[in-house]
Amino acid sequence: MDTVEDYMRQLGEEARRASRLLTKLDTADKNRALMLTADILDAARETLVSANQRDLDAGRAKGLDAALLDRLALTPARIDSMIEGVRQVAALPDPVGEVTDLHRLNSGIEVGKMRVPLGVIGIIYESRPNVTVEAASLCLKSGNASILRGGSEAIESNRAIAACLKQGLVQAGLPESLVQVVETTDRAAVGELITMTEYVDVIVPRGGKSLIERVSREARVPVIKHLDGICHVYIDAMADDDKAIAIALNAKTHRYGTCNTMETLLVHETKAATILPQLAEAYAEHQVELRGCPRTLSILSQAKPATSEDWDTEYLAPILAIRVVADMNEAIEHINQHGSHHTDSIVTENYTLARRFLREVDSSSVMVNASTRFADGFEYGLGAEIGISTDKLHARGPVGLEGLTSQKYIVLGDGQVRQ
Amino acid sequence: MDTVEDYMRQLGEEARRASRLLTKLDTADKNRALMLTADILDAARETLVSANQRDLDAGRAKGLDAALLDRLALTPARIDSMIEGVRQVAALPDPVGEVTDLHRLNSGIEVGKMRVPLGVIGIIYESRPNVTVEAASLCLKSGNASILRGGSEAIESNRAIAACLKQGLVQAGLPESLVQVVETTDRAAVGELITMTEYVDVIVPRGGKSLIERVSREARVPVIKHLDGICHVYIDAMADDDKAIAIALNAKTHRYGTCNTMETLLVHETKAATILPQLAEAYAEHQVELRGCPRTLSILSQAKPATSEDWDTEYLAPILAIRVVADMNEAIEHINQHGSHHTDSIVTENYTLARRFLREVDSSSVMVNASTRFADGFEYGLGAEIGISTDKLHARGPVGLEGLTSQKYIVLGDGQVRQ
Repeated sequence: MDTVEDYMRQLGEEARRASRLLTKLDTADKNRALMLTADILDAARETLVSANQRDLDAGRAKGLDAALLDRLALTPARIDSMIEGVRQVAALPDPVGEVTDLHRLNSGIEVGKMRVPLGVIGIIYESRPNVTVEAASLCLKSGNASILRGGSEAIESNRAIAACLKQGLVQAGLPESLVQVVETTDRAAVGELITMTEYVDVIVPRGGKSLIERVSREARVPVIKHLDGICHVYIDAMADDDKAIAIALNAKTHRYGTCNTMETLLVHETKAATILPQLAEAYAEHQVELRGCPRTLSILSQAKPATSEDWDTEYLAPILAIRVVADMNEAIEHINQHGSHHTDSIVTENYTLARRFLREVDSSSVMVNASTRFADGFEYGLGAEIGISTDKLHARGPVGLEGLTSQKYIVLGDGQVRQ
Repeated sequence: MDTVEDYMRQLGEEARRASRLLTKLDTADKNRALMLTADILDAARETLVSANQRDLDAGRAKGLDAALLDRLALTPARIDSMIEGVRQVAALPDPVGEVTDLHRLNSGIEVGKMRVPLGVIGIIYESRPNVTVEAASLCLKSGNASILRGGSEAIESNRAIAACLKQGLVQAGLPESLVQVVETTDRAAVGELITMTEYVDVIVPRGGKSLIERVSREARVPVIKHLDGICHVYIDAMADDDKAIAIALNAKTHRYGTCNTMETLLVHETKAATILPQLAEAYAEHQVELRGCPRTLSILSQAKPATSEDWDTEYLAPILAIRVVADMNEAIEHINQHGSHHTDSIVTENYTLARRFLREVDSSSVMVNASTRFADGFEYGLGAEIGISTDKLHARGPVGLEGLTSQKYIVLGDGQVRQ
């Protein structure tokens, strides 16, 4: 225990020291390090694959399930996209240093805001080694030092990746402690990382709900998190049927395991009888299990009865809860009460209702006539995504490079003093 | 203990319910409630003063010190400015609903950000009853429900104010639970308020360092806080002497007890011999005690030796630590190490050094040729201030109405689905 604590605090101290240097770096320095890292990863394919093989072998011996082994695997295609990802981050605009809102005040001073790095970011994630590279690139580009703690099943892969990241930094003439991979599998390392408030400015946990809940509960460092995605589509009385069917189908069946997938469909009572049978037919082709409220069941004999638990469940599976509502107020109330404030969409042609829905739904993304699946950093044009935040402070919704920065005030004067 | 918990949870539940209504309110509704509250406070002067008198009597009987009694007193002038403050908040632009960055993406969807309230804000402060009114107005205007917990010595004053606030809301046709004053002096109420994550979205503690440290340590709800203000002025080799003297004098002597007051003066070694004697003379007129590094002492015989503790101390008093540095690098290193990341200013005519100082000093306000005393919501043109944040997440520096809001993404489509 003592050694893990010492080890983590040493990482923290070095990260803090390195983060001070980052404010002096030019965009070109950071991009050069990223491009070099991409080349080094490319040249290290064999080493990466064999390190990963050791993880996979150990994982199989431990009896890890197929889904976990799949996420753990560094296939050639995944290595390609990992490398491509680093080059894409290098090509993104540098958020650091941007000055906005500079304006002159009565006293004669000019006040504005300058975008700056957060400092040191701790990323805690599961056994997906490609996340190591992705998180390291995003933190470096946004001017932050990072401490990366991946799942213990990926330790060999992460060590091999860490060596490449270090080499990239060193070749670019930067301190290698800008990016540090935690090279112990001791779980106490996480507890230390999330409580070292003097060294770490923010924690971004990425993974399943239990990981994020543990981190949120025990952290003393602020956390940018997303707990779950219970997303809704509400088909209004004034919905265009074709749009409604296309959106409700896409939001559920485009991918089942993602947080922006619809889990509950709300339908206005005047639409239910016409639209639900058509939708049920389309869902049947995708083997989606339907669970409905009593009014849904009276229309769809194939649906199972929904229990009160269903409204609060993130299935991450081909299951959909359906509820018929009397009007938009009931829909909004349902969403604000049972949703997870992630992403919710209305389908309507009514201008006034669309405006009210946008205003009154308290979610990180609120949509009109679009699939919830669009709630994503890439689809929103952020260029990259470290995660999606369902918090309200700091960053809300998809978090890109800008979400890894802060703004400080700058004041330009000519000798002004306060009267 | 159980009753306090129940009481606080009931306040939380009612605040949460009320906060949902706030998204439906127009700016005019909120302003009407504020203007009515101002009138009601104006009409209740006698009640307020007599309630305050009971607090003052009890305080004197308990032997409270003069400074605390002074802050507790609701003088006619304070009531005036309290009422004037409410009217000023009504006149400020409403931050809620502002849509920015709306742009069309390749998929055909339009994505933008809409400014929204945070939800429920808990304010914890000391025995200054005017803060009750100020905090309530700012939270209401920014669309948040608030739970206000003032110091127990001000309980009678706060109850009288709470009655006025409720009357204002009710007369405006709004639910009275939008603003709730905690009417128990049991300290357990604070512990409950800062851990009710399901009901409270953010805590803003206002007061001395020990209050803020306790709240930060025990809170489970996110906290917007400012711990201390160890602010610096650095007089560079290329400083204009007149500006340097004016700024160093104003930053220290304009007010001693404020967080943006300079506590340490850093002087370039080539400037020290000429500027320190002039400054020492000016400080002597204000009875400012000087504590210097060895090089300072060799120039100023009247200064006392500074100990290493001095560099880390927020005096809030007519005391100033002075250190002679070799160059700006040493000044920046001193500031980033010993400062509290609050407000720091350089005095220089050198363009390149000014740009570097702005970039490399890691503080919530970084200034060139201006007094640190400008770090203030009113001076920055925010119109009002709930506090100054030395955190990096969410809000940094003076926090006005905008700092009490968040932004959600909005997506406008024509039936788009994700490919």
